Amino acid sequence: MSGFPDRLLAGYDRFMHGRYEEERDRYRDLAEKGQKPQTLIIACCDSRAAPETIFNSGPGELFVIRNVANLVPPYAPDGEFHSTSAALEFAVQSLRVRHIVVMGHGRCGGIAAALDPNAEPLSPGDFIGRWMSLLTPVSSEIQQSTMLTAGERQTALERISIRNSLSNLRTFPCVKILEDKGKLDLHGAWFDISSGELWVMDEATGDFSRPGR
Amino acid sequence: MSGFPDRLLAGYDRFMHGRYEEERDRYRDLAEKGQKPQTLIIACCDSRAAPETIFNSGPGELFVIRNVANLVPPYAPDGEFHSTSAALEFAVQSLRVRHIVVMGHGRCGGIAAALDPNAEPLSPGDFIGRWMSLLTPVSSEIQQSTMLTAGERQTALERISIRNSLSNLRTFPCVKILEDKGKLDLHGAWFDISSGELWVMDEATGDFSRPGR
Amino acid sequence: MSGFPDRLLAGYDRFMHGRYEEERDRYRDLAEKGQKPQTLIIACCDSRAAPETIFNSGPGELFVIRNVANLVPPYAPDGEFHSTSAALEFAVQSLRVRHIVVMGHGRCGGIAAALDPNAEPLSPGDFIGRWMSLLTPVSSEIQQSTMLTAGERQTALERISIRNSLSNLRTFPCVKILEDKGKLDLHGAWFDISSGELWVMDEATGDFSRPGR
Amino acid sequence: MSGFPDRLLAGYDRFMHGRYEEERDRYRDLAEKGQKPQTLIIACCDSRAAPETIFNSGPGELFVIRNVANLVPPYAPDGEFHSTSAALEFAVQSLRVRHIVVMGHGRCGGIAAALDPNAEPLSPGDFIGRWMSLLTPVSSEIQQSTMLTAGERQTALERISIRNSLSNLRTFPCVKILEDKGKLDLHGAWFDISSGELWVMDEATGDFSRPGR
Repeated sequence: MSGFPDRLLAGYDRFMHGRYEEERDRYRDLAEKGQKPQTLIIACCDSRAAPETIFNSGPGELFVIRNVANLVPPYAPDGEFHSTSAALEFAVQSLRVRHIVVMGHGRCGGIAAALDPNAEPLSPGDFIGRWMSLLTPVSSEIQQSTMLTAGERQTALERISIRNSLSNLRTFPCVKILEDKGKLDLHGAWFDISSGELWVMDEATGDFSRPGR
Repeated sequence: MSGFPDRLLAGYDRFMHGRYEEERDRYRDLAEKGQKPQTLIIACCDSRAAPETIFNSGPGELFVIRNVANLVPPYAPDGEFHSTSAALEFAVQSLRVRHIVVMGHGRCGGIAAALDPNAEPLSPGDFIGRWMSLLTPVSSEIQQSTMLTAGERQTALERISIRNSLSNLRTFPCVKILEDKGKLDLHGAWFDISSGELWVMDEATGDFSRPGR
Repeated sequence: MSGFPDRLLAGYDRFMHGRYEEERDRYRDLAEKGQKPQTLIIACCDSRAAPETIFNSGPGELFVIRNVANLVPPYAPDGEFHSTSAALEFAVQSLRVRHIVVMGHGRCGGIAAALDPNAEPLSPGDFIGRWMSLLTPVSSEIQQSTMLTAGERQTALERISIRNSLSNLRTFPCVKILEDKGKLDLHGAWFDISSGELWVMDEATGDFSRPGR
Repeated sequence: MSGFPDRLLAGYDRFMHGRYEEERDRYRDLAEKGQKPQTLIIACCDSRAAPETIFNSGPGELFVIRNVANLVPPYAPDGEFHSTSAALEFAVQSLRVRHIVVMGHGRCGGIAAALDPNAEPLSPGDFIGRWMSLLTPVSSEIQQSTMLTAGERQTALERISIRNSLSNLRTFPCVKILEDKGKLDLHGAWFDISSGELWVMDEATGDFSRPGR
C-alpha cells in the first residue's frame, strides 16, 4: 500500500513485539505525563554514533539534537531560524534538563570536510561548507599543522570542536546562568567507532580520557 | 576524574559488554570502510521517539537529523548557517541515501507551542518561537479551527507539518532531481508514543495509516 | 662491608634465587656464545617505562639504549662522542639486529621540559636543555598551539618525537641501506604509564593505535 | 595493522595481564604523582644485563641510563649534545636521586673492542670507536699488558672503566657538591652474566667482591 522501506517496517515490527511490549507502561506513562529527560545530548547525524545505542538508553531519557559534526553555533538572537539554538532553548528553558553532553566521534565526515583544503561545495548552496565554517576560528591552526598526521589532525579537531561547542553553549544566557547556579552541568564526550571506546572530557583540563583509566 | 553522569556511564557499560561485543566486527568494518546508510531520517529531538529504537536499527543504517518537531526549512541558499539543510545536503549528495523519511510523533511539544496562541518566548532570543514559525504558513488555519478538538488540532498539525516538510524537501534541487530520476524516495511517518503505533503516509494521498491495516 | 643500597641487594637476592635459578642455562649459554638480540629498543630513562618490564622479556632479547626522551640525533660523523649513535652502530653493524623500536611514553619529563617556554637550565652546563633542543625543529609548532590542551600538546610532541627519531635513524647510512634491503625494520611505540596501554605506530600513516583495536 | 614484532606483542600481553594487573594502582599513582626514583643506574645496553631484571625492581625504582659499556664522559659544558650528561643532570638536579650506581658486566663487547688493537671501524662514522676512546686514558696500560691473559685483561678493564666513570661523575659540579654534602652516594657494581653473580665495589679500596662473602 506504500513504498515505505521494508527494512524499516521489519525493524519496527521487532520493536513493537520486543521493546515496546516490555516497556508498554513506560511509553503510556511518558505519553500521559510528558517527557522529563535529565539530559540533552548534542550528537552527530552519523549513522554509526546514535546516542541511544551508545548509552543503551530507554524512552524518555535523552533529548537529542543531531546535526553534522555535533556543532553548537554561538548565541545569535538575530531573528533567523536556528535549529540547534531552538532545540537547546527548549531543552534548557522548558524541559529544564540537568546535563548537556556534546558528543563527537572518530572519522567524522564533517570534521574531515572542515580539514580538507580542497573541499568542493556539494551543491551551489554549499550548505555543508557554510555549516562547517562555524569551525574556522578553531580549525585553521590544526589544518595547517605539518607535524601531526592526517589521523591526528582529524582527532585533534574533533576534540577541539567539542570544546568549542561547549564554549559556544556558555554564550547562551540561559545556559550560563543555570550553570553558574549549579543547576546545569556541561560535559564533553568522544566516541571511537572502531574500538567502541567512550572518551570523556575532563572539565578542568579539557583533556579526553577513558573513564577509569 | 569528571562529573560525567553515572547513568550514562552505566548505560555505556551495558553497550560495551552487550551490543558492541556482539557487533564488534560490524563497528570495525564501518570505521574502516566508512558509513553507507540507505536512509536519512529527519526526526524530533523528543526523548520518547528515537528512530534507532523505533526501527530497531543497528550501526550504519540510519543517518539521523533531529531538530524540534522534525522540520525541514525551504531551500534558502543565503550563505547563512543552516543545520538541517547542511545535513540534508551531506546525506543526499555525499552519502547518496536512497530514502528520506520525515518522522513526526504524537504529543510533540514543538507542535503544541506552534498551536498555542498565548505561547510566551522562552528567552529574549525566542529561538523556539522563530523556529516553529516555519509552520506559520500551514498552521494558522488549524490554529483557528473551531470545529476540531485540541487533540485533533495537535494531531492534524503534526501530520500537516510532515507533508509540509516533504514539500520543502522538494524545493532542494538535489532532492528534486534525484527523486525525478527515481534514485531517491521520500516518505512520511508518524509515531504514537502511547500505543507505540507507527502510521505511514500514503505518497499518493498524503493520508496516514497503519501498514497492513 | 659496603654502603651499597640494601634495597638493591635485596632485589638482587630475589633475582638470584628466582629468575637466575630458573634460567641458569640460558645465562650460561648467553655468556658463552655471546648475545644475539633480535631487537634494539631506544627508550627513555624514566623509571616507570623499562622495556624489559613492558615487554616481559628475558636475558638476551633486547639490546637497550636509554636516554632522556628516547631521542635519536641525526647522523653526524664529526668525531665527537655520540653515545646513542655508537650504540646504534654497534647494534646494527655488529649485532645485526632485525628490528629497531623507538619507544616513547606518556608524562615524559624531557618532553614536558621541551614544551615549557620558561624552562630554566638545571645547571650552568644546561645539558638537558641542549639535549632536548634536538626537538626544536619539530616542537615549536606544538609549543605554540593555542587549540590543544597542555595534555594534548604533551602527547602530540611525545609522538612527533618518535616519528622524528625514526627519520633521524634513516639518516644513518647503515640503517637506510639495511632497511632498503629488507633486512631491518623500524617501529614506533608509545607506552601509557597510567593505563599500561601500549600504542603502536602504523608505519604507513605514522598514527598510533592499540594493536587489535 | 603494523609489522610490530609478534614476540614483543606477546610479551606485552603477558605484562598487561600479569605485572600490570597486579600493580595497576602503583602505575596509576606513579603516573599521577610523577616518578621519584631513589637510584640512577648507568648500565650497558647489553641484552643480558638489564638492571630491572638483575635487581628485580618494580616501576618507579630505577632511573636508567644505558649506553655501550656504561661509560660516563667527563664534565664538558661545551654546548654540544651530551646524552649521558643530560640524563645525569636530570636525575641529580631534577629528580634528586640519592644513589648513583655504575654497573658493568662481564664479556662486554664495548670493552672487548676497546682492547682489540686491530678493531676496525664498524662504519665510516666510527661512532663506537670514538665512544670507546673515552677509555683510552685508562685502557692502554692493560691493552699492552703481557702478563695478563685475554680474559684477565677484559675483566680488569671492565672494572677500571667503572672506577673511571665514577671519577668522571665527580667532575660534574652538581654531583661533587651533593656527594660532599652527604646527599648523594656513588657506587660501582659488576655483573657476571655466566654465574649471575653481582660483584660490588668497595668505596674505600676500589676492589670488587661479592657481598657477604
